[in-house]
Parts: sequence; C-alpha cells; structure tokens
Amino acid sequence: MLKERYREAFLAYAGCNLVLAAAAAALCAYVAPAAAGSGIPEVKAYLNGVDAHSILAPSTLFVKIFGSIGGVAAGFVLGKEGPMVHTGACIANLLGQGGSRKYHLTWTWLRYFKNDRDRRDLITCGAAAGVAAAFRAPVGGVLFALEEAASWWRSALLWRTFFTTAVVAVTLRAFIEYCRSGKCGLFGEGGLIMFDLSSTATSYRTPDLIAVIVLGVIGGIFGSLYNFLVDKVLRTYSIINEKGAPFKILLTVTISLLTSCCSYGLPWLAKCTRCPLDLDQCPTIGRSGNFKNFQCPPGHYNDLASLFLNTNDDAIRNLFSSGTDNEFYISTLFVFFAAIYFLGIVTYGIAVPSGLFIPVILAGASYGRLVGTILGPMCALDKGLFALLGAASFLGGTMRMTVSVCVILLELTNDLLMLPLVMLVLLVSKTVADSFNRGVYDQIVTMKGLPYMEAHAEPYMRNLVAGDVVSGPLITFSGVEKVGNIVHALRLTGHNGFPVVDEPPFSDAPELCGLVLRSHLLVLLKGRRFTKDRVLTGPAEVFRRFGAFDFAKAGSGKGVKLQDLDINGEEMEMYVDIHPITNRSPYTVVETMSLAKAAVLFRELGLRHLCVVPKTPGRPPIVGILTRHDFMPEHILGLFPQFKHHM
Amino acid sequence: MLKERYREAFLAYAGCNLVLAAAAAALCAYVAPAAAGSGIPEVKAYLNGVDAHSILAPSTLFVKIFGSIGGVAAGFVLGKEGPMVHTGACIANLLGQGGSRKYHLTWTWLRYFKNDRDRRDLITCGAAAGVAAAFRAPVGGVLFALEEAASWWRSALLWRTFFTTAVVAVTLRAFIEYCRSGKCGLFGEGGLIMFDLSSTATSYRTPDLIAVIVLGVIGGIFGSLYNFLVDKVLRTYSIINEKGAPFKILLTVTISLLTSCCSYGLPWLAKCTRCPLDLDQCPTIGRSGNFKNFQCPPGHYNDLASLFLNTNDDAIRNLFSSGTDNEFYISTLFVFFAAIYFLGIVTYGIAVPSGLFIPVILAGASYGRLVGTILGPMCALDKGLFALLGAASFLGGTMRMTVSVCVILLELTNDLLMLPLVMLVLLVSKTVADSFNRGVYDQIVTMKGLPYMEAHAEPYMRNLVAGDVVSGPLITFSGVEKVGNIVHALRLTGHNGFPVVDEPPFSDAPELCGLVLRSHLLVLLKGRRFTKDRVLTGPAEVFRRFGAFDFAKAGSGKGVKLQDLDINGEEMEMYVDIHPITNRSPYTVVETMSLAKAAVLFRELGLRHLCVVPKTPGRPPIVGILTRHDFMPEHILGLFPQFKHHM
Repeated sequence: MLKERYREAFLAYAGCNLVLAAAAAALCAYVAPAAAGSGIPEVKAYLNGVDAHSILAPSTLFVKIFGSIGGVAAGFVLGKEGPMVHTGACIANLLGQGGSRKYHLTWTWLRYFKNDRDRRDLITCGAAAGVAAAFRAPVGGVLFALEEAASWWRSALLWRTFFTTAVVAVTLRAFIEYCRSGKCGLFGEGGLIMFDLSSTATSYRTPDLIAVIVLGVIGGIFGSLYNFLVDKVLRTYSIINEKGAPFKILLTVTISLLTSCCSYGLPWLAKCTRCPLDLDQCPTIGRSGNFKNFQCPPGHYNDLASLFLNTNDDAIRNLFSSGTDNEFYISTLFVFFAAIYFLGIVTYGIAVPSGLFIPVILAGASYGRLVGTILGPMCALDKGLFALLGAASFLGGTMRMTVSVCVILLELTNDLLMLPLVMLVLLVSKTVADSFNRGVYDQIVTMKGLPYMEAHAEPYMRNLVAGDVVSGPLITFSGVEKVGNIVHALRLTGHNGFPVVDEPPFSDAPELCGLVLRSHLLVLLKGRRFTKDRVLTGPAEVFRRFGAFDFAKAGSGKGVKLQDLDINGEEMEMYVDIHPITNRSPYTVVETMSLAKAAVLFRELGLRHLCVVPKTPGRPPIVGILTRHDFMPEHILGLFPQFKHHM
Repeated sequence: MLKERYREAFLAYAGCNLVLAAAAAALCAYVAPAAAGSGIPEVKAYLNGVDAHSILAPSTLFVKIFGSIGGVAAGFVLGKEGPMVHTGACIANLLGQGGSRKYHLTWTWLRYFKNDRDRRDLITCGAAAGVAAAFRAPVGGVLFALEEAASWWRSALLWRTFFTTAVVAVTLRAFIEYCRSGKCGLFGEGGLIMFDLSSTATSYRTPDLIAVIVLGVIGGIFGSLYNFLVDKVLRTYSIINEKGAPFKILLTVTISLLTSCCSYGLPWLAKCTRCPLDLDQCPTIGRSGNFKNFQCPPGHYNDLASLFLNTNDDAIRNLFSSGTDNEFYISTLFVFFAAIYFLGIVTYGIAVPSGLFIPVILAGASYGRLVGTILGPMCALDKGLFALLGAASFLGGTMRMTVSVCVILLELTNDLLMLPLVMLVLLVSKTVADSFNRGVYDQIVTMKGLPYMEAHAEPYMRNLVAGDVVSGPLITFSGVEKVGNIVHALRLTGHNGFPVVDEPPFSDAPELCGLVLRSHLLVLLKGRRFTKDRVLTGPAEVFRRFGAFDFAKAGSGKGVKLQDLDINGEEMEMYVDIHPITNRSPYTVVETMSLAKAAVLFRELGLRHLCVVPKTPGRPPIVGILTRHDFMPEHILGLFPQFKHHM
C-alpha cells in the first residue's frame, strides 16, 4: 500500500518534471533555438563583435525567460543565472534598437543608441544587470561584465555598468522589502544576502591553509575535467540536436527522466537520522528547508533528500550552513557530489536555457563539505566554510574568473573575513585548471564556431605579414560609380565594406579615398538620386535628401535590404557620387606589416575592416581588406599548414 | 599653575609636530622632491606612458616611506593611503629594473621585466598592493588599479593584480594575527576590517532615501569645491615651493603650526559632557579611544578633543561608530568639519608625502554625521551610517571613483546591507560634481604639466588631419647610415625614435623601412662594429655581437648614454647597417587621416611614435612622426587658435 503511494508520488513527480521539460524544450526548439544553453558565451561573442543571427532577438528573449522558468521548475541540475545574463542583454538590445517595431514597442528617444558603440555599452550594462539580479550582487555584476563579458573596456563603461547595477540593487531591495512577509512565494528569501555566513567564526591556523590549498588544487583538477567533459557531451549532443526539433525534445525528456530518477531514487540509499533536539523545525514541512522527512519515520530526516528534493538555492544554503557539522554523512555528500557533477555535465547542452553557475556551485559546495567532513577534527574550519571554499574552487576551475567570482561569493555570503581564503583558493584552482584547458565559456564559443577575436595575437602570426592572409578577389568602387556596378557587387558578394578608389579625372593618380559600408550604400541607392553623367554632386545633395539618422545602424535584420531596392534598367546605367558616405579615414596597414601587429590593431580598436595598402608605389592603391575571419586560426592555418606544429 | 601646565603641553605638542614636520619636509625638499604629495597622479601618469624624471626612483621610495611616517606623526590632516600606492609602485619599479645596481640590490631573474609592458603591469600591481595594504581591502585594491590608476587594461592584468592583492591579504592577515595582543602598537587595530559596522541595523524607508540623495547632492558640491580650492592652493604653493628648499620647509612648518593650533585650540570651544554610565572605558586613558578627557573634570569627556587629539583612524572610527547618536554635539561636528575641510585643503601641496583619502573621508564623515544629527529623529538611519554615506559622497565628489570607492568602503566597514545606499550616494555625488569640474587626480596631473593622454579624442580633433599637427624638422636615417650622421642626430635632437628610409641601391625607390629607437642605436654604436663601405652586414653580425637582453629596456637613467660613446674621427666616417635593429612594422597613418582617429589609434595601442606617411606617391616616404606631445591640447591649440572657442 505504502509502496504503491511512493510509486504514485514518483510518477507525479517525474510526470510534472517531464511535462515542464518538454514544454521548455518545445519552446526552445521551435521558437528560438538560440535561447538554448547559458547564453553567456553568445553575449561574450556579441560584445567581441560577433553579430550572429538572432542571438539577442525578441523571440530569444521570450524563450529565454519562459524556457528558463520551465527548465528550473522541471528540476534539472541547471541555473537561472546564465539565462538572466542573456535576458538582460536581450532587453538591452531591444532598448538599443529603439524597441521592436514588429511588436509595436518603440520609443523615439532610444534612437541615440543606434550606433555600434553605445549599443555594445548598453548590452554590457544589461549583462551586468543580469548578474546583479541573479546573485543580488551589484558589484559582482559590474566585475562580471568587466572580467568575462566585455572585450573592450573604458572608464565610462565602468561608470555606466555601476549605474545600472546600483539601480538593480535599489529596485531589488525595494521588492525584497515588499515581499518580506512571504507574499511573493520563494522570492526574496534570504534577503539581500542569499546565503548569510557572516555569523560564522573564522579563525584559522597555518595547517588550515594547507588544507585550503589542497582543496584548491583538487578543485582545479575537477573543474578542468568538468570543462573537458562538458565539451565532449556538447559535441555529442550537437549531432543529436542537428537532426531536428523532435530529437531535441526527446533528448531533453530523456535527461529529465534521468534527473527525476536520480533525485527520487538516490535518497533511498541514505539512512534516516534523528532530528537534533534543539531544532523546532525538523523535519521541515514547508516548501523549503534544511531537513526533509521523505521516507523516514516522524522526528527523523533523510539528509540526501534534504539536498535532492529541494530548490537549488536551498540545497546550497544547506551545504553552506554553519554550525551543522554532523547534518550530512560522508556517504550522502559523496553520492550527492557524484550525482550532481554527472547530471550537471549531461544537462548542459539540452535544448533548454541552462546556466552553469548553479551546477558548479552545487557540485563544488558538496565537494568542499565532503573534504571538510573527511578531514573532520583535523581542521578547525567550519564545514559550511569548506563548502564555500569548495564552491569557489570549482568556479575558479571551470569559469576561470577570479575577481568577479570572489566578489559574487562575498556578496552571496557576506563573509568578509573569509576573503583571504577565498582569494587563495581561487588563485590555486584557476592556476591548476589553466594548465589543462581553457575556461568553459571560451570552449563553448570555440565549439559554436563563433569568430571570437582573442586579445593577444597568436605566436605564429609574428612570422606572417598582413599581405599574406588577404584573400578573395577585391571589389573596389570608384568615387563616382555606375549604379549598376554597385548593385551587381552588392548582389554577388556578402562583403560589408568596400574600398573606394579615386581615379582620374577626380585625382591625378588612383588613390584610396576610403571605405564605404554596404548598409550606407543601400540607403543611398534607396534614395534614387542618380546623375546621368559621371560628376561630383557633393555632400549638400545627400544632406538635403537624408538625415543623419537615416544612416544610423538599424536593428538586427531591419535595415534596407537589397531586394527592397527598386531600380530600373535606365537607372542602372546612371552614376552616383559615393564620396559623401565614404569613411575618408579608414585605418590602414602596409602589406608588409607583421600580422601580429595588424591583429593587435584590429582587436584593440574594435575594427570590422582593415585596409591593406601596398608598400611600393605604382600599384593599385589597395591590396585588400582584412576582416575578423582573416585573423581566425582556421583561416590562417588553412593557408599556411606549416605553422600547425607551432600551436 | 594649571594654565602653565596647559601651555607647556601645547609647546610640547606643537614642538614635536614641528620637528617631525620639518624633518619630513627637509627629506622631501633635499633628497627627493618627487616624493611630495599623494603620488597617485604621478603613478597614473606613469601608467599612461609619461616616464617623468625620478617619479619611481629608489630615493623617492625612501623619502616616500619616511616622509610619510613623519607627516602622519606630525599630526597633519593627511593620509598615508596615497603615499602607500606610490610606495607600492616604487617597489614594483625597483623589482622591474632588476633591482638597484647603485644600492647593490640586483636579481638576474628580474630581467624578464625589462620591457615596457611587463614593467607597466608590475607597477599596476604595486599600486593595487598599496591600496590593498592601506585599507586592508584586497578587492578594492584591484578595482582602484583598474578604475583610477591603469590606462590600459586586459584580462591578464586583472588576474595579476588579483594575485598580488591576494598575497597582500594573506600576509596582512598573518601579521594581524601575530599582532593581535597589541605587541605591534597600533598596527592591526580593528583586525582585517578597520571600521566594523556590520552589527548596525539597516532598515530604511523611502523618506530616508530622499535624505540620502540630498546628502549626495550636497556632498558632490562640497567635493567639487574641494577640488577647486585644492587646485588654487596648489598653484599658490608651487610659486612658494619654486623658490627653493628652505621655502618649502618654511611653508611646511607654518602649516604644522596652524594644524597644531587648531587641534589644540579648538577643543577648548567644546563643552564637557558627562560620560555615558554604561561604558567602562570613559574617559579613555590609552593612546586611542572614543572619549578623550582633555581639560574636563573626571567622568566627563570633550567630544571635540576626541576627534582632534586622536589618530586619524580613531577619529574616523568615532564618527562611524553606531549606537552613539548623542556622543557628538552639532556644534562640535560643525567645527570639526569646517576645520578639517580647511586644513585638508591647505595641507595638500606642502613638501610632505600626503594622501587625500583620509582628509576627504574625515571631512565627509563629519559632514554626514552633522547632517544626520541635524535631521535627528526625522530619519531612521543610524548616525554612524550617515557618517559613512557622507564619506562616500565626499569621495565620489572629489575623486570621482565609483566601483572602487564602493568596494573599499564595503571592505572597510563590512556592511553589505548598506551597499545599495552607498552606491546611490556615490552615483549622485559623482554626477553632481562632474558637472562642475574634473576629478582631483586629473586636475593635479594637468597642473603638473604631465602630458596625459585621455582615452577619448577631443571634439576639435575631428576637424584636423594627422598632417596638420606634425611638427619640427624630420630627421631620417638611411638603412645603412654613416656613423657620424647618427651621432650628430643623436646629439642635436632629443628624439627617441627615428624613421629609417631605404634608398637606392638598397631599394628601387625611397621607401619607409621602419623605425629605430635612440636607445637601440646607442647600444649598437657602443658595439663599434662599423664597416668602411656602405654595405648590408645583415642580422647575423649583430646577433653575434649582442644578446637580446642588451637591447632590453634599461632602468630609468641606466641605459647607454651619448657621452658613454667613444667613437673616434675615423669611425665617424664609417658606416653601420641599422636594419637589424629597425622595427620593420611601425604603425602608420596616412597624412589625411582624421586626427581624432589617429589619436584613438595612438592611445589604444599605447604607442610612443606614430609614423605619418604621404597620401600621394612621388614624395618622400614619410611626412613626420607623431608623439604624445603632438596630441596635447596646448600644442594643437597653439597651432590652431581658432579651435579654442570650441573647448
């Protein structure tokens, strides 16, 4: 009879999880595939200059929010933090585009963001706001945006992200104040500090430091192993996911079943423990709490169930809790650690918005508490502090962030006296892990094939010059060009920038006038002010016809398109003066410039096109254009396979 | 009789102060004038690329340490934080030079720092370590280095500063542990958190927010006024200081007397207050404490004396202390605020190492506590918290740092729940103050005439091109140049870089080969491997004679000098091949490049020389070289006065 009830409970539990998981996966697979995963690698790539398709589209935003709710509710071992960063970036992008015309949400004053730099800044602020809201860590948000998300940093940006997260902090504080009496469900639990550890005594001696360093070393190894396995699993999943939406849902459902079985099945392995007498809240009755009764007799609790059958936040709170040295058995911690480590790896990559912070913190905290419990009385540190240090070591080992993780953990736990130890463990684990592989977000960026520009040039680039990697037939325009030629070039190529060369009679010899952008050419052609003869019309004519905002960067997929042009055969034979829309000061390098230095120039100035000019006179005034793709290792090593062994 | 004793006490007090002040000023005036002042502007300028004379020399380090001890001990209203940043940078520079040969402190493994970038990184780490040690704020140190000190930032640098401050934190923690029982005097008081406020209850309502915003606005106004007055006083003092060392000492002694009079005289204005009954430590007997007896009868304390006749740290602790709402009278706070505000302004600029943090925090804290006391029961916030917010508003108003001040205050007070309020007040005060003038460190950099490159280009630069500002007669070398010509050019000019132009027979037409540095030329000439004829000797010859480290950047003032060369008349007529030491990939811009874009290129890539090449062929292959000075507003506005009204 009782057995029957437990089976029913399992079916209800697994069934609910399954439906939620399937719904989230269906949303993700059919509406916005870009919403799957953490989103932090995509935001990172966007801020590096990779404007991949629909990374920050409104549909992605919608799926990210509701898919994440579904995914977290389905009991997966995944976090909401990464998706919140992506959500923040999506909202910022929506604002930066002046709202969504498709969904009738537009504001005219937002047009001031219609340029690359301000839009990038706004999205950095969005990402910072996401972290600030997720961890209730405003300073941590600023530092995350600085350390992990942004590729270019300047003082004004620091100030803007700080402004954003200050607003987040004040708003969050107001909501938490309002929700204090539990009228918003679980929201606001723990107040502004999610896992308060400040009451823990923190005195430590030299032998404790050794324990902490060893914890950091092993944490670093586990962290890099985590990255390695996540990469392998992602590559396997991508084969399955490519087969189509139904396969994505099937995969998600399988993982959901696996997770449900683990969460429900593994607690049966644990022994029942008598409740501590001095606690009046054991076993826990409400939705959350430290001591779950599960299958135990009254007055007892199942310590493994207290971790598995709980919200992720409460599981972390349990592991971090201080003064509860005997709450968890070693076997319990080991089973939980192994299960979460494994489930975390197989969960990332399913078609559901899924953050990596929570799985890593959970695995790290259980690992830390496990080590603390094994060491037992040999080490004076509290077991909750061990859990915190374990979490820090895993975060350092997988994500390779230091300052931001340190501040986020500080703001999560309010334990300033632990700062030296947290810093130490982060240093050790990052150093150890860096000797094996790269950070998990960098790995995912590479795996997704996003052309991310690293801040430094690769060593083999020093043996090459800029002229070596310029590729493809070069298409140049004359200062006053035939309309037909322009339309033809725009149709034939996907180039976004074209060099403009002044030729006689407009100059004495062919010389490089500048660079013109595809989007600006399209706007100019749409205006259809052409001349019969090849004459300079000058800028006045263009400014009469267009305002500056006509040439402002449009929202993704919203600018003038080639098929929008309506140019008849007669006009095709006419001329247009493209001088007024030409950038007359493009950055140039000489063809004999070291490729490494050209790469630094390209990266530091955040360019999209870099003109390569000839060294010796008497040749055409431009050799070619370097774009982001020309600096990618795949491209260069494809051209020069002999450098492969240098990598 | 008693009156006599008080006079004796004053003489002893003022006399000690005077001797200490004179000693510090003498050290500063005679040994290392560069050690006067905060040092943060100098470090900031150095990290921007301004290698001014003896900023980071060993003598400066020595005077900075002992002068700062003298200055703080002399009871001036100045801090030790700025000098500690400078000290950290000096130590880093000493290590980066491979130690000091003059003082027989050298390590060969340190030669790996002998290049500009690693040395700059090391000095950034040194500055971060200074803040970390001064405020016991490791994360604040990293952020200070990022926000205020460094001009270029990259991920690796973040990680290195974090490493440095983590080591500082662990070391500091160990020392504080060791000194716990008072065996190191006042060191380590307060533990790792200097002014612990974490026990303060922090609940606030909407009206409190308004009070906080008003506090921020007024703090911003006072802060910008502070900057304005400091600038005026500094300009006045520099006239006095220029007259010679005795005048410097005289000025210092005058200010010392003024400070002594204020500290000793003003407390007489305060009433005696009966000690609170529940305290067993009132009046305070030891060296530091909350309740100074001064001239009061037993069982009473003088609240103004508790602020004036105390260490700066203890005065701040008194002001920040919570639950002591009635300890200070309004009149006391007003007198203290006015005196400190005034003394802080007149003290900065005397020939003593003097930080600005402590005067600003003291003035801000007394201002905040004054506002809190005036508001009285209208506002639920603790008076100690008001003092904290007042300090934040002054720091935001003078230094215009946000994230770093926020984290430093957090690490000073351990009061995470106050974070939203501190962020808010910083935002408000910085915004208000920014509408009046620039940050105090930027002002000092400008006043000292250091050629600091701003991160952004000035608007009038958009109306100019690179060719407009190239100045002076250009000196170029041929690829194989006559020794006499090189020596002559080195002697006649102070240029640090020379373009190398290949001419027939080494090329078909004159073309730009690259850029050669003065220091490398000197090393090459010192080697005296010249040839009779004008022939290419190739790199093998140079590499046989020199190692790579011979060309490494020497310590300041330590490289080969022109007068070290010993070249006879015969050698002067010989030739040397300078191709092997020429940088073949200098960054170049076309002469018609917008000056604003050239400035961005120069600044972002951290260049020292930027070659300007002609647009049209048939002219000499280089038009000129742009250096830092060519981008300075003074230089450009001197050439083009018509842009002055655009500023």
